[in-house]
Amino acid sequence: MLAKATASGVRLRPHFKTHQSIDIGRWFAQVGVDTIAVSSVTMAAYFSSGGWRDITIAFPVNVREIKRIDLLAEVTSLGCLVESVQAVLALNAGLSRDVDIWLKVDAGYGRTGVSWDDTDSFDRIIAEVKKNPRLTARGLLTHAGHSYAASTTDGIVAVNAQTITRMIKLRDRLAPMAGDLEISIGDTPCCSVANDFDGVDEMRPGNFVFYDVMQSALGSCTHAQIAVALACPVVAVHEKRNEIVVHGGAIHLSKEHLFNADGSRMFGRVVTMDDGGWGPPVDGAYVGSLSQEHGVISAPRDLIDKIEIGDLLGVLPVHSCLTANLMGGYTTLDGDLIDHMSCST
Amino acid sequence: MLAKATASGVRLRPHFKTHQSIDIGRWFAQVGVDTIAVSSVTMAAYFSSGGWRDITIAFPVNVREIKRIDLLAEVTSLGCLVESVQAVLALNAGLSRDVDIWLKVDAGYGRTGVSWDDTDSFDRIIAEVKKNPRLTARGLLTHAGHSYAASTTDGIVAVNAQTITRMIKLRDRLAPMAGDLEISIGDTPCCSVANDFDGVDEMRPGNFVFYDVMQSALGSCTHAQIAVALACPVVAVHEKRNEIVVHGGAIHLSKEHLFNADGSRMFGRVVTMDDGGWGPPVDGAYVGSLSQEHGVISAPRDLIDKIEIGDLLGVLPVHSCLTANLMGGYTTLDGDLIDHMSCST
Repeated sequence: MLAKATASGVRLRPHFKTHQSIDIGRWFAQVGVDTIAVSSVTMAAYFSSGGWRDITIAFPVNVREIKRIDLLAEVTSLGCLVESVQAVLALNAGLSRDVDIWLKVDAGYGRTGVSWDDTDSFDRIIAEVKKNPRLTARGLLTHAGHSYAASTTDGIVAVNAQTITRMIKLRDRLAPMAGDLEISIGDTPCCSVANDFDGVDEMRPGNFVFYDVMQSALGSCTHAQIAVALACPVVAVHEKRNEIVVHGGAIHLSKEHLFNADGSRMFGRVVTMDDGGWGPPVDGAYVGSLSQEHGVISAPRDLIDKIEIGDLLGVLPVHSCLTANLMGGYTTLDGDLIDHMSCST
Repeated sequence: MLAKATASGVRLRPHFKTHQSIDIGRWFAQVGVDTIAVSSVTMAAYFSSGGWRDITIAFPVNVREIKRIDLLAEVTSLGCLVESVQAVLALNAGLSRDVDIWLKVDAGYGRTGVSWDDTDSFDRIIAEVKKNPRLTARGLLTHAGHSYAASTTDGIVAVNAQTITRMIKLRDRLAPMAGDLEISIGDTPCCSVANDFDGVDEMRPGNFVFYDVMQSALGSCTHAQIAVALACPVVAVHEKRNEIVVHGGAIHLSKEHLFNADGSRMFGRVVTMDDGGWGPPVDGAYVGSLSQEHGVISAPRDLIDKIEIGDLLGVLPVHSCLTANLMGGYTTLDGDLIDHMSCST
């Protein structure tokens, strides 16, 4: 991802909400990354404690947390997202230190942000930002989350192209008032699949650090590129119905799911594990249902025949961000333990 | 629930996997409860450290954890679930202390356990248990999780009645070999809705401590009985599409969902909050989509008009066990902080 960003003349600001790990963050620092995005003030504080000094809190500012943001801004350059005049007023009132302001743009996803063609609202927000010397209107930021709804990689490329076109149009319209705003985009499907980022200043993909079954279904990655698996102890084998029960449930994998061809739900793909890692997904094997602690795997006959209770099966998660958040820690293939924010408090 | 159990001559062994809290556990101890169920060895160790001395680990024994079980059995009476000869052999080999054995029965749910009518398998398991004086065949245990699929409360009562009939039939068949095995049942819908528990020795409901939107949809409780809400700061209001964005996403609520009448997904009901608590669910308001940190609430016009960024909205979770697990802690209406296992490590 860094090679692609560099080749495109784009700053990589990886989103660390996927791994939430100071240890893994160091791997990025070792290859020269020094700007990151996070999804909460708590996560910003955690990575600030890990030495990161340029952090965008890529979530609409929660005005109840301005005191914490202000304290954090003493030691770390912070970017905050605003999408209303009200949020700017609250920042103006509460901050005693400088922060960068990114205007949150809805470029077509429809989740949140100001619609890219609502120039009047952007004008009003920028006017308010300019009144306070603590705030610098740094750029326009969007998350093209509708790339996840694309049914082909061409569709993802089209979402990327449309997003960039709209962001450039908006930047040019705002230039007389706001000067040369940066453009920040960032969703893993677009950053993985697309190659044309002309006009973009930075990209913020996050999930690519691990990828997952959802990304492989989208075409963002191959199964072999999925870098995280949940190791699940087998506790029961039901030969008659070709099912294996593992200790690996909703509190480990999350309930994120995709659908099998027959419409049934699929909560993860299954791999066999050995000391060296894991193999490719076993054909026809998947996690078909989850309780709080139980995972029920539908398995082909040859897997049923060779698995016993006490064995470990690996599950490639549908959504690695949620699984990593629930598990709160990692073991490398070398046996090293890796931290996660949710276990560091 | 204790009153109902006592009136029925049934031991209440509440399942603590829902709250996972030593503080909340004390409320049970104060009314005389001294037997509990948990869903993992880690949870058993946590509650053992909180002074509990009679704990059933209500999950098929993970034979990779027998050493931990053995250490824990030194200070706490433990019940373990088995559903295969293989698991009994592993316990025989690994334990140096006494544990009770509960035979995990599938009485119709079809998740795991030995089918209630497969007497031969039960005979083989019991024969193996009897070979080891460390193990005591204590009883038959089932979870009638198919009560969650009942469409009416009459349906739940029918699941309860069928479950008890099957458990009694199995106990009577096994009596010549195993003596007087106890019968343990436990799912919140049956324990909430049914009133006839003749022949049952203990019940293990868990979710009833908080209830949630799923239970109210089933008829296990009213909305007013839901005792936990996620307090979510409002970060954006989208008047044009009647949506409110809150900081409350998949890593807070979990992705458990129900469906609205129009087939759209619903990840929680919305309540307004004040210092005294919260009101009834707002008609027409629900969490319609979740990202990692974002919750998008569909709201009626009058809620949109009175809500501003920085306000708190409450979300009644679809599945309180998963939300409590993710949040790792509670605040009472009096402002006291209550612990949760996932934040105690």
